[in-house]
Amino acid sequence: MIKELLSVLMVLVALTCSIVKPNEIPIKNERVEPQTLSRGWGDQLFWAQTYEEALFWARSRNKPLMVIFHLDDCPHSQALKKAFTADREIQKLADKDFVLLNLVYETTDKHLSPDGQYVPRILFVDPSMTVRADIAGRYSNRMYAYEPSDMKLLLSNMQRAKKFLKAEL
Amino acid sequence: MIKELLSVLMVLVALTCSIVKPNEIPIKNERVEPQTLSRGWGDQLFWAQTYEEALFWARSRNKPLMVIFHLDDCPHSQALKKAFTADREIQKLADKDFVLLNLVYETTDKHLSPDGQYVPRILFVDPSMTVRADIAGRYSNRMYAYEPSDMKLLLSNMQRAKKFLKAEL
Repeated sequence: MIKELLSVLMVLVALTCSIVKPNEIPIKNERVEPQTLSRGWGDQLFWAQTYEEALFWARSRNKPLMVIFHLDDCPHSQALKKAFTADREIQKLADKDFVLLNLVYETTDKHLSPDGQYVPRILFVDPSMTVRADIAGRYSNRMYAYEPSDMKLLLSNMQRAKKFLKAEL
Repeated sequence: MIKELLSVLMVLVALTCSIVKPNEIPIKNERVEPQTLSRGWGDQLFWAQTYEEALFWARSRNKPLMVIFHLDDCPHSQALKKAFTADREIQKLADKDFVLLNLVYETTDKHLSPDGQYVPRILFVDPSMTVRADIAGRYSNRMYAYEPSDMKLLLSNMQRAKKFLKAEL
């Protein structure tokens, strides 16, 4: 049991990045590409810019919100991004049924970090504005982390998020 | 005096847009351009995504933050954007000495709407995290609104924002 626990912990240490902020704005070349709201998580999807905007869309469109916390210099975030954008079913469902937000900075809403601030992590928010802390990944101490191999679980969690809290009551 | 007041009020009615949110996410064409963080206010500038991110950069880089509230479907915002991007001195100063954020949704920080929520409006925030409500435009009932003809005043206000509060004490 202890061995199992240790092996799970080792996976998790390797799986997520702590949030250590860079202290320099990237130095610009002569001509830089405009920064995109998608940050590479699906240029063809419609991304909200801020949490406030995303909540507005979720409420007014009656769609669940999917919040992806990530960092450009975190290899685990980058690996997840690659798997996320390559998965057609996820991209299609995200496009059709979700309000999307990806963030490289934490918000002031502590409900978005039920078990701490780390990346990558994915949280769902119900259109009733409730953070769905019950929809988690497979790792016990970083509950909202996903690995590239977890795309089936992520897809099934997206489908769970589509079943609204109100309907479940 | 009353006549003057009335004429100022008329200008102001024409100058800014009320914030009425659309209730539809834009319908996508087959292939859409990725949304940019600049939203057309200067693709070559470095834009923060959220207020939290912008405050982080302002503090860590010791630079004032310039927050531009605007809307895509507000003609006054569009006219100001055109003047803002065409003004080389403003673009240069913004690039060199400011942390930049443009928002189409309000934040939860009421300090960013000292005299109400309207667009376009521009607020400065000191690196000490204080909103510079003292740095205003020329209109008495929409203090943080600017017209395209106000670019000289905006430039001079940017220069004022560079004189930090701590240094003034």
